[in-house]
Amino acid sequence: METDLQEKLTNLLGREKVFLKKDARFAEEEFLSYGIDRTKLYQANFQVLLFPESTEDVAKILSFAYQHDLAIVPSGGRTGYAGGAVAHQDEIVVSLAKMDAVLKFDALLGAITVQGGMITQNLHQEVEDKGFYFPVDFAATGSSHIAGNLATNAGGVRVVRFGPIRNWVLGMKVVTGTGEVLSFNGEILKNNTGYDLKQLFIGSEGTLGIITEVTLKLTQKPKDSRVLFLALPDYAKILQVFQETHAFPLPVLTYEFLSEVCIQKVCHHLGVTHPFAAASPYYVLLEFEITHDSDEDELFRFLESITEKEMIEDGSIAQNSTQAEVFWKYREGISESLSLLHTVHKNDISLPLANMEAFITAMQALLQEKYPDFSFALFGHIGDGNLHLNILKPSDMLDEDFFATCKKVDPDMFQLIQKYDGSISAEHGIGLLKKDFLGFSREKVEIQIMKEIKRAFDPKNILNPGKIFD
Amino acid sequence: METDLQEKLTNLLGREKVFLKKDARFAEEEFLSYGIDRTKLYQANFQVLLFPESTEDVAKILSFAYQHDLAIVPSGGRTGYAGGAVAHQDEIVVSLAKMDAVLKFDALLGAITVQGGMITQNLHQEVEDKGFYFPVDFAATGSSHIAGNLATNAGGVRVVRFGPIRNWVLGMKVVTGTGEVLSFNGEILKNNTGYDLKQLFIGSEGTLGIITEVTLKLTQKPKDSRVLFLALPDYAKILQVFQETHAFPLPVLTYEFLSEVCIQKVCHHLGVTHPFAAASPYYVLLEFEITHDSDEDELFRFLESITEKEMIEDGSIAQNSTQAEVFWKYREGISESLSLLHTVHKNDISLPLANMEAFITAMQALLQEKYPDFSFALFGHIGDGNLHLNILKPSDMLDEDFFATCKKVDPDMFQLIQKYDGSISAEHGIGLLKKDFLGFSREKVEIQIMKEIKRAFDPKNILNPGKIFD
Repeated sequence: METDLQEKLTNLLGREKVFLKKDARFAEEEFLSYGIDRTKLYQANFQVLLFPESTEDVAKILSFAYQHDLAIVPSGGRTGYAGGAVAHQDEIVVSLAKMDAVLKFDALLGAITVQGGMITQNLHQEVEDKGFYFPVDFAATGSSHIAGNLATNAGGVRVVRFGPIRNWVLGMKVVTGTGEVLSFNGEILKNNTGYDLKQLFIGSEGTLGIITEVTLKLTQKPKDSRVLFLALPDYAKILQVFQETHAFPLPVLTYEFLSEVCIQKVCHHLGVTHPFAAASPYYVLLEFEITHDSDEDELFRFLESITEKEMIEDGSIAQNSTQAEVFWKYREGISESLSLLHTVHKNDISLPLANMEAFITAMQALLQEKYPDFSFALFGHIGDGNLHLNILKPSDMLDEDFFATCKKVDPDMFQLIQKYDGSISAEHGIGLLKKDFLGFSREKVEIQIMKEIKRAFDPKNILNPGKIFD
Repeated sequence: METDLQEKLTNLLGREKVFLKKDARFAEEEFLSYGIDRTKLYQANFQVLLFPESTEDVAKILSFAYQHDLAIVPSGGRTGYAGGAVAHQDEIVVSLAKMDAVLKFDALLGAITVQGGMITQNLHQEVEDKGFYFPVDFAATGSSHIAGNLATNAGGVRVVRFGPIRNWVLGMKVVTGTGEVLSFNGEILKNNTGYDLKQLFIGSEGTLGIITEVTLKLTQKPKDSRVLFLALPDYAKILQVFQETHAFPLPVLTYEFLSEVCIQKVCHHLGVTHPFAAASPYYVLLEFEITHDSDEDELFRFLESITEKEMIEDGSIAQNSTQAEVFWKYREGISESLSLLHTVHKNDISLPLANMEAFITAMQALLQEKYPDFSFALFGHIGDGNLHLNILKPSDMLDEDFFATCKKVDPDMFQLIQKYDGSISAEHGIGLLKKDFLGFSREKVEIQIMKEIKRAFDPKNILNPGKIFD
């Protein structure tokens, strides 16, 4: 970016909000970290990092960018896995890190309005202090921003009970690619006055506008819960047990699954023992909400019933919260264990539950045939049809060879996903990583319409250009 | 529409799917009823009525219409209150009445795929027979089509617990204004691959495409419930009691309110006695979900607590389902009683709960000052901030004078709604009725963007032209 523009921008916003790479007010590594996410596949390359403090600041920035044809990368908590927050072409990086205030709390409705840069975990704390609960929860909440959660329609471990974040968004304020500020809804639950434009921003990965303020509906925290850890002989049984929960009177809070490989890696990395006397191919972590003492008896009856029906090989109910935490460790420790023990190629996909077994069988056959050296670790939010599929690098293979091969594996896998009516990205989005493969999940006409919609909000294509599609 | 085009269309679809006004295969009144809704303010005027039986039929129709520049009005159950389904300019009316089949049921996920013309009540029955529950419920479910529910983002009496229909839509198939068929999602819960275009169709009132197939997520029916009928001294108390429910352990299924005028009209029309010993200005119908016997004690404690805090003047818990039905009659009988006893001008609006009291006070003052002869009846889904505001015609006024005056009242009211950050249409949509007032709820830039979005799906503006905006 040209020096005179950098100067103009500094004058526009004030020096405390404008960081230039050449100024070295940050160490270079820290500076550049604002332009990458967790994919680690891309190199950051940019000169200007901005820290707006208000919607007005963001509007100033985007008006300036519109006027001067400057590309923008919105930067949140950078916990993404698709390269959506990567600045690699001398874009201006706009970090919302300083926009983390609570703007309004509505105790009547049960709603909160915050700036987009609020860290998800802080939001959880804020609302719990006020006697409410915000149910969107996942591993990265300690860093992720609420606007980033929206920009990727974050899911997590409670979707099976509370739905994705989309269901909790009442209103938002956004700044479009022309610098205009749009306010959608606010604290009203119902508003049928034309197209619900805010829905487009949910999952838009920063390509339509910068989400500066968000109003979220809140709910009540589940009173109590019990965690069951189940060992299952095959994939079909995972779904059978899930189906059993539909008729069961207690609400399911989470229905997560993990394969034996995942357990082994967690045991190895965390130095814990195997949770079951004998290994099984698959495990399910099932959490039920309970409200009354008598619910405990219901739980035992449930466990008895699935045991009698031979759906599980083993299973136990956590007797207290400490044991529940121990159970959860096997699920929550997976990502960290895999990535510290191995070089991993991740895929986050979803399938109709009814097609899941056929897909996994076909996927195993595909890998076995074409890439016999690769092993893979499966886990995910199975109640949502969401698989995290991790391919592990063989130890005698070079990283670059591995990733090059994975690049060839992906289209084969995506073809299978398409065949089984699934999605090539369940939660993580498209970003840079999957844009070449968007056609496996979206039709040509749809992509064309998406581009026209982008043009309506961002006529000069300055907002996160090259993300999702070119 | 020209005769040769009518002939071509008959050849294209077959005579059994094409009804021409001049054929008189329907009585004229029945024929024309396919081109109006419940507003009764508009006259139907059209020559051609089509009954497609499949998505392919609809695609044929819209391709033909696109090719020949013919305007289309999608016709569902015609239970709308905004003129969204009115054909008054010689449009082709496309009724989905014959597209009412169940296409697929997924017991694993708990989901059903149906054709868009399925009647909502039939869908309820279908899924209940299969051990599931579809929670979107409102007075017109006996006639309304599921695609129509989507096209208006239907709400109803369970929104406070289950959210609007938007939260239950997994997938849909639509035909756009060029005759192209788009399939969104299907049986997957999570799909973050670019903009979620199906969200635009929810609430689009037939202006972006015809929704031919819908996949809905299902849930479990509340095990049991108890209904409380409360009498309150003022508006503030309605909100205070609502706030009390947040911390209360049982889930709220409905939180409806009605004014004394409504009760009087229901008593008069249905010939029932007043439900309370003394009249109060406002009443609340509050339904809690219960799952355990001990919940009954909780309910009594709740009633005791709000009585002690002097939030209510009177209140009782229905002792059995018969009494609960009696309580519900006072709420469900309002619309019918009002419209049979009076000429009514309806408005369906929403406000932030926190602004509701100030709005109602201001609204009363406005009517008192400018239209002292008008009385009004208030009721609605107050837990959602949704008011149904009914202005009653003075008995000595002519209908046309009344409606002409109401046309002048509306902008004043909409201005107040705008001032208090509300919406001029909570559930009913914009249609023809409120399109001149869209600017009170949506900014100019937004309306411009909506038009660009419409162009992307419907480049020739043949889909329900003139609805929502010109």
